[in-house]
Amino acid sequence: MIDVIVSGDVLRATTKAMVALVSEARLHFNSDGLHSRAVDPANVAMVIVTIPSTSFEVCKVDEEKVIGVDVNRIYDISKSIKSDELVELKIEDETTLKVKFGSVNYSVALIDPSAIRKEPKVPNLELPAKIVLDAGEFRKAILAADKISDHVVFRSDETGFYIEAEGDVDRIEFHMSDAELIEFNKGEARSMFSIEYLKEFVKLAGSGDVLTTYLGNNYPVRLVFDVCDGKVKVEYILAPRIEAE
Amino acid sequence: MIDVIVSGDVLRATTKAMVALVSEARLHFNSDGLHSRAVDPANVAMVIVTIPSTSFEVCKVDEEKVIGVDVNRIYDISKSIKSDELVELKIEDETTLKVKFGSVNYSVALIDPSAIRKEPKVPNLELPAKIVLDAGEFRKAILAADKISDHVVFRSDETGFYIEAEGDVDRIEFHMSDAELIEFNKGEARSMFSIEYLKEFVKLAGSGDVLTTYLGNNYPVRLVFDVCDGKVKVEYILAPRIEAE
Amino acid sequence: MIDVIVSGDVLRATTKAMVALVSEARLHFNSDGLHSRAVDPANVAMVIVTIPSTSFEVCKVDEEKVIGVDVNRIYDISKSIKSDELVELKIEDETTLKVKFGSVNYSVALIDPSAIRKEPKVPNLELPAKIVLDAGEFRKAILAADKISDHVVFRSDETGFYIEAEGDVDRIEFHMSDAELIEFNKGEARSMFSIEYLKEFVKLAGSGDVLTTYLGNNYPVRLVFDVCDGKVKVEYILAPRIEAE
Repeated sequence: MIDVIVSGDVLRATTKAMVALVSEARLHFNSDGLHSRAVDPANVAMVIVTIPSTSFEVCKVDEEKVIGVDVNRIYDISKSIKSDELVELKIEDETTLKVKFGSVNYSVALIDPSAIRKEPKVPNLELPAKIVLDAGEFRKAILAADKISDHVVFRSDETGFYIEAEGDVDRIEFHMSDAELIEFNKGEARSMFSIEYLKEFVKLAGSGDVLTTYLGNNYPVRLVFDVCDGKVKVEYILAPRIEAE
Repeated sequence: MIDVIVSGDVLRATTKAMVALVSEARLHFNSDGLHSRAVDPANVAMVIVTIPSTSFEVCKVDEEKVIGVDVNRIYDISKSIKSDELVELKIEDETTLKVKFGSVNYSVALIDPSAIRKEPKVPNLELPAKIVLDAGEFRKAILAADKISDHVVFRSDETGFYIEAEGDVDRIEFHMSDAELIEFNKGEARSMFSIEYLKEFVKLAGSGDVLTTYLGNNYPVRLVFDVCDGKVKVEYILAPRIEAE
Repeated sequence: MIDVIVSGDVLRATTKAMVALVSEARLHFNSDGLHSRAVDPANVAMVIVTIPSTSFEVCKVDEEKVIGVDVNRIYDISKSIKSDELVELKIEDETTLKVKFGSVNYSVALIDPSAIRKEPKVPNLELPAKIVLDAGEFRKAILAADKISDHVVFRSDETGFYIEAEGDVDRIEFHMSDAELIEFNKGEARSMFSIEYLKEFVKLAGSGDVLTTYLGNNYPVRLVFDVCDGKVKVEYILAPRIEAE
């Protein structure tokens, strides 16, 4: 049996992170907490979500268990739970997830995990640049870039980290120097990405959240968001786009 | 002549309660205050609204009077009045209702009351269960149920009050025990209702407002809302739906 | 070279005022500050915007300069700048306006001023009535009138200032007496205007902003808004509509 209690914001952030890419997913419960990963139907991006057991108020997991859920449904439910309200998730048999908060009791039908697309392996990526910045600043840059283009270049060198976009007549450049970044190894790297995906990713990030970006050359990027005061770790891996010369 | 002064929130709540069911209605002014009732075109629900004379700042009613109004129009106007701003309603002849607040003077054409559908008699209902609860909690339950079904079961027995809905695969149950309810006579009752109507009803209810529910067995329900700090009483009577076995 | 620094709210208010009428405009920079005026495509209204040099944090204008810009684009950018955040506008050559705030650098392509419709001369109007009032109250009256009609009458006489609208069955009158107005010369005047335009104008006005109205008889009206704590002056001149008898 699984019986865990967590705050509303953690459940909301976790499911919000997943619905950016998929509508159904497998959740793994074990003594370390909750873990899930999934790839979007187009195979362009992967999401990896982790709630460590210490982020739960109560975390009773009798045995390791994998369940299949409609994450859209859980995300929908989570929107009516207040951020600091406690919500209980309970699985007593193979068919039902019980979601309980306040006077409300949801019974959500589980999906046979074998009917859900197999989880991907997390690829082994060697990424020379590591950039740590405020997630709210990153979000602002992505949303600004979205107004003039559908792709952005991430670039880093010893002068700092750059996000660049070019429209038909306009150009936007977001630049943070070493001093403005939380942490920076000054690695050199440059890759181009689709804003369509990045726009979805930044939805869960607010000012004050920390984003660690691992960047390579024409190589996938790893974006690791620490949200809900560090209670949830959300990692996205996004494939690059080919930059036309 | 009729010349009454009331706060913006009272006018707004009263008209909002009515537009949930009808677009035109008869308003009765007498020394007790203002009273109105109406049935929706499908004859499924009735609304009964009462503003006692003590809820008016000024209540000058020379003689009993019935007027016909386009409640949508008055509700529209009321939305631009602040909650604690005073608004004067004045009827000097048979043709015009004057609505005055701040520097604004509306003249709204009256409708011949005989052109509006006759008011219903309030039915005499014997309802065994009386449940008093926070209207905000009730609203939350109805909105949650709406996500998975188009009808709900209200049920009460000695263990408390239940609102239940079933979707194709999910189930939601809202439960408040005797201790969580403001007042409860532990009467046994069970009826099913359309969420479509309930959703409209709960629009005017916020946390802190008190809702008294009178429930029977496959019988209409009476929902009595005390809103605007008790200055307005809104009662809805809703016909049950037949529960398929 | 031009290099000025201004707060986000000033840039937003200025461009918002212009997009109410045009999408492209000529901006004049000189030692007095920034000035622009434009007429809408239908030749019904004119907007005149002035930011005096004292409203800039820094105002470096080497020589008088006229540039052509897509004001919609600048307004769009300005929406992502906080009100009290400083934004730098820089023109180093004939082709590009650089907009810089926080870590963001926009390069906006300039438009050849000769490709933009020639600015109008400001007409010389003799307007007998001068009415100074809270812009938020004016806005409220226009939005209320918009619900029942598509034109309004502005009227002033010794008893005060009136805004009147008539619908098919309803009528609304907004009245402020001498005592309620900030300043009033009691001039007699009356003209009718299109709400379609006025609705756009009042978008930039909030409670606390001051509006000076100069009114004549079947003659254009001048509406002078002082916004952003007086840092920006926005003037609209609106042609009257013929009042059918």
